[in-house]
Amino acid sequence: MRMYDIIAAKRDGGKLTKEQIDFFIGGYTRGEIPDYQMSALAMAIYLRGMDAEETAWLTAAMAASGDMADLSGIEGVKGDKHSTGGVGDKTTLIVAPIAASCGVKIAKMSGRGLGHTGGTLDKLESIPGCSVSLTEQQFIRQVNDIGIAVIGQTGDLAPADKKLYALRDVTATVSSLPLIASSIMSKKLAGGADCILLDVKTGSGAFMKTLEDSIALAKAMVEIGEHNGRHTAALITDMDTPLGCAVGNSLEVIEAAETLKGGGPDDLWQVCRALAANLLSLCGKGTLDECEAMADEARSSGRAFETLCRMVRAQGGDDGFLRDTSRFVKAPCRREVRCGADGFLTATDTEKIGLAAVALGAGRETKESSVDPAAGLHVLKKAGDKVRSGDVLAVLYAADEAKLDAAEEVYRGALTVSQEPPAPVKRIFARVDRGGVTML
Amino acid sequence: MRMYDIIAAKRDGGKLTKEQIDFFIGGYTRGEIPDYQMSALAMAIYLRGMDAEETAWLTAAMAASGDMADLSGIEGVKGDKHSTGGVGDKTTLIVAPIAASCGVKIAKMSGRGLGHTGGTLDKLESIPGCSVSLTEQQFIRQVNDIGIAVIGQTGDLAPADKKLYALRDVTATVSSLPLIASSIMSKKLAGGADCILLDVKTGSGAFMKTLEDSIALAKAMVEIGEHNGRHTAALITDMDTPLGCAVGNSLEVIEAAETLKGGGPDDLWQVCRALAANLLSLCGKGTLDECEAMADEARSSGRAFETLCRMVRAQGGDDGFLRDTSRFVKAPCRREVRCGADGFLTATDTEKIGLAAVALGAGRETKESSVDPAAGLHVLKKAGDKVRSGDVLAVLYAADEAKLDAAEEVYRGALTVSQEPPAPVKRIFARVDRGGVTML
Repeated sequence: MRMYDIIAAKRDGGKLTKEQIDFFIGGYTRGEIPDYQMSALAMAIYLRGMDAEETAWLTAAMAASGDMADLSGIEGVKGDKHSTGGVGDKTTLIVAPIAASCGVKIAKMSGRGLGHTGGTLDKLESIPGCSVSLTEQQFIRQVNDIGIAVIGQTGDLAPADKKLYALRDVTATVSSLPLIASSIMSKKLAGGADCILLDVKTGSGAFMKTLEDSIALAKAMVEIGEHNGRHTAALITDMDTPLGCAVGNSLEVIEAAETLKGGGPDDLWQVCRALAANLLSLCGKGTLDECEAMADEARSSGRAFETLCRMVRAQGGDDGFLRDTSRFVKAPCRREVRCGADGFLTATDTEKIGLAAVALGAGRETKESSVDPAAGLHVLKKAGDKVRSGDVLAVLYAADEAKLDAAEEVYRGALTVSQEPPAPVKRIFARVDRGGVTML
Repeated sequence: MRMYDIIAAKRDGGKLTKEQIDFFIGGYTRGEIPDYQMSALAMAIYLRGMDAEETAWLTAAMAASGDMADLSGIEGVKGDKHSTGGVGDKTTLIVAPIAASCGVKIAKMSGRGLGHTGGTLDKLESIPGCSVSLTEQQFIRQVNDIGIAVIGQTGDLAPADKKLYALRDVTATVSSLPLIASSIMSKKLAGGADCILLDVKTGSGAFMKTLEDSIALAKAMVEIGEHNGRHTAALITDMDTPLGCAVGNSLEVIEAAETLKGGGPDDLWQVCRALAANLLSLCGKGTLDECEAMADEARSSGRAFETLCRMVRAQGGDDGFLRDTSRFVKAPCRREVRCGADGFLTATDTEKIGLAAVALGAGRETKESSVDPAAGLHVLKKAGDKVRSGDVLAVLYAADEAKLDAAEEVYRGALTVSQEPPAPVKRIFARVDRGGVTML
């Protein structure tokens, strides 16, 4: 088998075989196939596409290119929830404890924030003492003991994806649907869960800006999961405006804790309730209606909140901060962003709001940056809200005034105020599973 | 300017600017742009194409990437004839002396054979003593003195093309029209001629197998030449059957000499006459009809033959071999290939005939191979001919019997004998110039 023939076949619009895909992923991972051949193939895939079967094979080959998490030591159904990334997206901190408190095993490897999107690991580390580094043995034991662990990646998961992504990043071949879907799903397959619920964000703060593209990505990922023997479904949720009010690490932990205690912003709870119910149902816990009632009960009984506290404690954290969130250290500088006109907040550029949070110190510009746990912002007026001159639109928090200045300018650039009331905001657009797409 | 943005622009079907093309060709030649970005761009160009202007800019940038031949020391109009390569294609040895003997200055850098196609340099070197290595000064002086010199490449012509071609060769991006056309024409532009006549071969022995593809290539090359200030035209000529009878280095020199002396195969003369007339006309020597008469006169008067002899002498060769071609050393082994059935020779796979010549020792399998000047074959029956069982179809010449065995098998595989007479064979299909395509 020759890489040349594989490139030529895809260039001419042909379908690659499983053997061809295994050959080039294996060869590329081992360094036997040079970057210049792989990038030519990536461009051919970008322009010619891959069908569902090819994409599933590619994903499986990338998943198998390194360590595969062995969750066989965990009893019961292992569920995972994965978000494609957003601003103010603290759903893992809410959905995972709900699912765990209802009997689904959550053995989750999560990521750090990069660019305008936040990451669950950074949020957990803002809780004093809380570690996200466990050995594989500790990880398995904790999930068996208390039903849940959320940690950083252990071992070398999907190295082919890492190498290929770095190449795509410099050859303008990132934004290809089969390549995006296989990149995400290769890590999910390697992560070992039986059931995978995907939260595909759509809108100005998401990787996929349009509903159509988001549904296409969700379909591709669901097909990959099902083809590889994992129960997989996806919700398409809104990221045209931040989810909830808090953006920033400890600010989001506080909002998540309040939400599990029965408070928090309503939009955040509605999305988390739907995600939790879908994950529970995917894991065989009942119909969607039954699972929604289970999620409600897990929250109102305080069981889900106690599960989060147990997890944080097991990972060395002080759950007293979750019980009394006023104990979190506050940022020394604070600024209110006020409205200059009457009207309606018709649109927010959510990617810019995420970048404002980065400017405040809450996120990373490069992988090497560190984050300020207390930095961030509270969004008080969201797209669709009526606003009057002088209203506080947001409150910014940072270590110094210079950061506030920079962030305020970015934040103001994210807003549009008009006289016409906008269409009502929707937070959940569609559900995708192996049966197809259901618009919600 | 960033290579990433250039790749993305072409990936999305955009038109590149002259500045972008200069940037990536310059950067790639200097080693500042890595192979993996260049190959992604090559695939994007392959699948998205380039318009005439982009292709002309690309060609100019590649021509300017190294040494440009300075022919300003040569008085008069400098003409060049370039063939896209074929089997038995000895037209340079005939057309160039005719043009030179009619006052066009031929300062030609030529190439060696590779694969199934022969090369002019190998043919010239089969004449005892004849050298194809001149200094630039010797080259210019010889053209001024006797009107013609045909030598190997001096200096570093179009290194960008050399580097890019090597990359395309391993990334399945060779067969792209703008990339093929710009590759050929970059060397022609760097070669310095004012007027360029292209002989685009079409058929089983050519790079372009169909008339449609050959015309498209010719149009692209003519547009490149004209856009860069060179008078350029092309003839589309047949390579579905070898040109003339002789295939092999000294065999072809002998056939060329005989043709200039008034003999030789008629098909060879008809093609050479058309090429010579078109080149003369392109160089401003008269109408096509007038130039055809000039070509006839240059041949019948012996002036063109004497020009070839003078050139060979000037390059150190013994023109006595051209005057008495029986002096050429003959191959020690010889075999007649006889027909096994009655009928018509309806088709010959000319690429296979070229490969039979390579098997005999007349050509190169790799750039490092050497050639046997006496090896080759004479095609006695060509596509369209009536044949009877026992007729000699071809005579093979080689250094040993093993080579004859191998070549005979290849040669027989190139032939198709049928009962139905085939359509008459055409040797010149079309003429392409800046005015468009004229079917002939």
